[in-house]
Amino acid sequence: MKEIVKERDNTHFRQTRLDDLVEYYRPFSADGRNAEYIPALGKIDAKQLGICVTGSDQTMMKSGDWDVPFTLQSISKVISFIAACLTRGIPYVLDRVDAEPTGDAFNSIIRLEMHKPGKPFNPMINAGALTIASMLPGDSARDKIETLYALIEKMIGKRPVINEDVFRSEWETAHRNRALAYYLKETGFLEAGVEKTLEVYLKQCAMEGNTEDIAMIGMILANDGYHPFSHEQIIPKDVARLTKALMLTCGMYNASGKFAAFVGVPAKSGVSGGIMCAVPASFKRKEPFQHGCGIGIYGPAIDEYGNSLTGGMLLKQLAQEWDLSIF
Amino acid sequence: MKEIVKERDNTHFRQTRLDDLVEYYRPFSADGRNAEYIPALGKIDAKQLGICVTGSDQTMMKSGDWDVPFTLQSISKVISFIAACLTRGIPYVLDRVDAEPTGDAFNSIIRLEMHKPGKPFNPMINAGALTIASMLPGDSARDKIETLYALIEKMIGKRPVINEDVFRSEWETAHRNRALAYYLKETGFLEAGVEKTLEVYLKQCAMEGNTEDIAMIGMILANDGYHPFSHEQIIPKDVARLTKALMLTCGMYNASGKFAAFVGVPAKSGVSGGIMCAVPASFKRKEPFQHGCGIGIYGPAIDEYGNSLTGGMLLKQLAQEWDLSIF
Amino acid sequence: MKEIVKERDNTHFRQTRLDDLVEYYRPFSADGRNAEYIPALGKIDAKQLGICVTGSDQTMMKSGDWDVPFTLQSISKVISFIAACLTRGIPYVLDRVDAEPTGDAFNSIIRLEMHKPGKPFNPMINAGALTIASMLPGDSARDKIETLYALIEKMIGKRPVINEDVFRSEWETAHRNRALAYYLKETGFLEAGVEKTLEVYLKQCAMEGNTEDIAMIGMILANDGYHPFSHEQIIPKDVARLTKALMLTCGMYNASGKFAAFVGVPAKSGVSGGIMCAVPASFKRKEPFQHGCGIGIYGPAIDEYGNSLTGGMLLKQLAQEWDLSIF
Amino acid sequence: MKEIVKERDNTHFRQTRLDDLVEYYRPFSADGRNAEYIPALGKIDAKQLGICVTGSDQTMMKSGDWDVPFTLQSISKVISFIAACLTRGIPYVLDRVDAEPTGDAFNSIIRLEMHKPGKPFNPMINAGALTIASMLPGDSARDKIETLYALIEKMIGKRPVINEDVFRSEWETAHRNRALAYYLKETGFLEAGVEKTLEVYLKQCAMEGNTEDIAMIGMILANDGYHPFSHEQIIPKDVARLTKALMLTCGMYNASGKFAAFVGVPAKSGVSGGIMCAVPASFKRKEPFQHGCGIGIYGPAIDEYGNSLTGGMLLKQLAQEWDLSIF
Repeated sequence: MKEIVKERDNTHFRQTRLDDLVEYYRPFSADGRNAEYIPALGKIDAKQLGICVTGSDQTMMKSGDWDVPFTLQSISKVISFIAACLTRGIPYVLDRVDAEPTGDAFNSIIRLEMHKPGKPFNPMINAGALTIASMLPGDSARDKIETLYALIEKMIGKRPVINEDVFRSEWETAHRNRALAYYLKETGFLEAGVEKTLEVYLKQCAMEGNTEDIAMIGMILANDGYHPFSHEQIIPKDVARLTKALMLTCGMYNASGKFAAFVGVPAKSGVSGGIMCAVPASFKRKEPFQHGCGIGIYGPAIDEYGNSLTGGMLLKQLAQEWDLSIF
Repeated sequence: MKEIVKERDNTHFRQTRLDDLVEYYRPFSADGRNAEYIPALGKIDAKQLGICVTGSDQTMMKSGDWDVPFTLQSISKVISFIAACLTRGIPYVLDRVDAEPTGDAFNSIIRLEMHKPGKPFNPMINAGALTIASMLPGDSARDKIETLYALIEKMIGKRPVINEDVFRSEWETAHRNRALAYYLKETGFLEAGVEKTLEVYLKQCAMEGNTEDIAMIGMILANDGYHPFSHEQIIPKDVARLTKALMLTCGMYNASGKFAAFVGVPAKSGVSGGIMCAVPASFKRKEPFQHGCGIGIYGPAIDEYGNSLTGGMLLKQLAQEWDLSIF
Repeated sequence: MKEIVKERDNTHFRQTRLDDLVEYYRPFSADGRNAEYIPALGKIDAKQLGICVTGSDQTMMKSGDWDVPFTLQSISKVISFIAACLTRGIPYVLDRVDAEPTGDAFNSIIRLEMHKPGKPFNPMINAGALTIASMLPGDSARDKIETLYALIEKMIGKRPVINEDVFRSEWETAHRNRALAYYLKETGFLEAGVEKTLEVYLKQCAMEGNTEDIAMIGMILANDGYHPFSHEQIIPKDVARLTKALMLTCGMYNASGKFAAFVGVPAKSGVSGGIMCAVPASFKRKEPFQHGCGIGIYGPAIDEYGNSLTGGMLLKQLAQEWDLSIF
Repeated sequence: MKEIVKERDNTHFRQTRLDDLVEYYRPFSADGRNAEYIPALGKIDAKQLGICVTGSDQTMMKSGDWDVPFTLQSISKVISFIAACLTRGIPYVLDRVDAEPTGDAFNSIIRLEMHKPGKPFNPMINAGALTIASMLPGDSARDKIETLYALIEKMIGKRPVINEDVFRSEWETAHRNRALAYYLKETGFLEAGVEKTLEVYLKQCAMEGNTEDIAMIGMILANDGYHPFSHEQIIPKDVARLTKALMLTCGMYNASGKFAAFVGVPAKSGVSGGIMCAVPASFKRKEPFQHGCGIGIYGPAIDEYGNSLTGGMLLKQLAQEWDLSIF
């Protein structure tokens, strides 16, 4: 990294620096691999890397493949959790899904059997996300999904598109998620039918966005649910804070602890290579990051935990240079 | 809680409010129990509740049993982790102890067997703390403990006293910790002998302090290792941030996630009823908490997770009133 | 038990003794409970208790509710395992299902995740039985079931009837079995579709028989697969022995070890209250049990492990009086 | 194996056949490895293979390295279990150690934590054997060991010798066993001190014998505890049967199920390469095995489960040729 020049304090140099870093980290994608267990994701160009940073003060920085649409995958768990809290209330939701990190893989089923009565440990692992999907309002999968669409539209000003290829691909290979859903059905932690819940869950995973979209959602969370552009409180403060706490403790699969330690911002990743960060305001930082920002990353080569490899490297570097940590 | 009047923005009323809250929560100790598995802790008056808040700006608030000395127990894990990082370096330490929350009880052994090669998941559970104790510099237990004493003296200006009764009591009943230590010895994650390591670990647990002492340490951590009174950088910034991240994700046993969600500050509890919090500076708060503070709590009635019951209730209320959450 | 007169060595007194024992143990059903998780089983009269003993020498003893038809439930796992070995060969079968007892509950899923690559531990737990059901020959569920019908007809001279009420009842509440099946599908240990496999599995569980029917199957197994009445080798000797070994080590759920210790005969139970025993020939016994026998038991009140409570008590007593243990 | 001539029915040819088989299987030791985790065992010549078969009718066959002394290791668990039953009674013993196979490795600790209150699953795994060692009569380790010596002397006519090298070697590296013992101490399943219990346990493991010695013990068990040479009932019949049942379900570590399936005799192995079998009388066999026998095997190259590799191959072949299975 010696060859990379030091950050300079103005917009032009900051953009140049960001571009340099994106190009610097892009080749490391060779050490990762696409999420091949979802066939449709296996074909994607792993060398892609893009970022969008959206400041609470409306400054915006973009670099690389920032505008490539990708499926949100597990990032959607944040949105569905918020939607469940908005419609059911926090106590109802936390009665059915706990808020504890686990140290287990995202699709683990062991803990459901080991810890009676099988309440999912948190909404950021698949078991918890299925329970959340099942409790969204509405009788049909369409109605439940609509709740998510409406919330997203409020936040980013447009309705998401479902990538039908990815949805089909996941639907047909969702054996492990079906196993989890049936297990939850038996223990009483699924409020809708298994197939309906899976349709909601897999469609939410297949919703497309780009880094600008998720940076915007991250920025709203950074602002405790207040949208600084539309001047609207979209998410109640207590829901926004609870969501950020869950992102920090559980958002990066079973590397969440290391991510908290070395990046230190609430973040949620998806196996398609997205990372959504909410960076709350802090004195410690220089402008323009002092008032908080949202960061969206896209880099489809993932590491052993399921997190974007190059995206994580880029974030770790930026966290140091821009002093992003909340700690 | 309706009968409690709203907080008012000046010192006198803030103190009155704190005193009221301490007295309000004190009787809830009846719903907890002392940590009876350590015989010497079983005799302590469970109704005690005390707090000290030490601001980075040298303001200080104290209430209730703030000056009662208690054994630090698991709070000492924070200090020994810092000492290990200072003397061995972060990479050495994290090669031997991971930084991931587990969702398991503090004394669990399962994960050491399930996840080869048996590396402890984090330094805040017993397995990890034993590994940390074993890697402190020095050949003898005395030398290793001395490293902790020296660090504590730098932070609070005095050397801690060992409660010999508690040490003896724990030493004789430390079967589970011995089991963990021998397990770690076998898998190669213990760098010193088992008995020596246990002596260090149990002595660090038996070090006494009061809420003022731990509030001071919390305040230094809140300031990224910088001591605002002595103007000395006692702990490097990267170590301080890593420590706070671990406190947030793993510091409150297997209720860490819920604590992050509803209190939202890096904290470490001990079964003797102490809680040490590091509250980083934040715009969002009003003075005098804007520039960060340390909070020390003592309430020996503990809940099912091993955390101070009344201390946790008091903290949750203060976090709301004073807007302490880092999220 | 003092009031019960000692067994005497002739047919009449042996029958009287058996009748006395059945009546003696019948009231203990009050300490058990029906398998209420299968709604259709919840309604059955728990005080029923019946037995049929079929000797290799064609002697037969019956007592109590010996002729009440009941659904075979897990007893069918023995039959489907034999059918799979007959049609696929032992190596093919054991490549896909291991032959090790587990100590876990019959419907446990933990071990599939803990022991990569998720091969079921034995064919007597649900996970293994689902894998076995999936490998029966035939493309349709009907064809697969037909293989079982044909084998049963060869052994007892008639085709079994499916209890449609029980099948429907189990089909609608088979969430846990569906979870297991989808898990196995993902790890590659299910050779047919999930729904098809479940149809086979739940239909085999819903096949009806009475104690005479299962005593006959047990007797054929006791004779290493040779039918002493029809003089036909229905099951190859190696398959029969393997089956008996699996019954002994894994046949009584997670009480198999205690059953081996205190009864000591290869046996398979079902949650509907049936127990099928294969008692190999032994010198040690007096006539008429010297040449081996099959024993069928029916007592629908089950214990905490899922085994017939009164049936188990009766068997334990008979094992002592008749010296049935193979050890 | 085609080149090996068929067994013939007389003593001479039987001996020749046995010698041929020992030489045939000896070279397969190259696929195994010594139990190197016990340093003193690592040096032993892995190509050794020996067998002794002792018939209830006093016929005896020996071949290969039958007279090489080896440490009994886990085979001693059978003897200490019997000694505990003889001195404490079966109910007392089974109140403290269960009789269920586990499917876990011999030194596993997981199940102690997962299944409250931590009762060891069976006396053939280390956890259970430690509990058994702790309950042997006597205050000192010497007294407890003496109970084993006395029982062995009654069975084989001589007192065993402790291999001090092996004992020292195991004592110094017994970290995992110490972990188990301390865990059991905490949960109340250890009746003596940890160090005393470990001394007993590791000394019993270091007792030496050869194949003739263990064949004799196996033969007595085969005869339900009756010594056909001394005409003495050394072990009560119920203890002998319980012991054989435990050997069959749990005696070959987590390959016990496969061993029951393909050999089918109660057996106990040790990591030093010994296997002790008790073959009860059976009609099905030809003379001289009809009246039961004991078999002692020694082959120090062990397989992945900890069982003698060549010993297991030899036994499997003999089980087929001599029709040894109890099923």
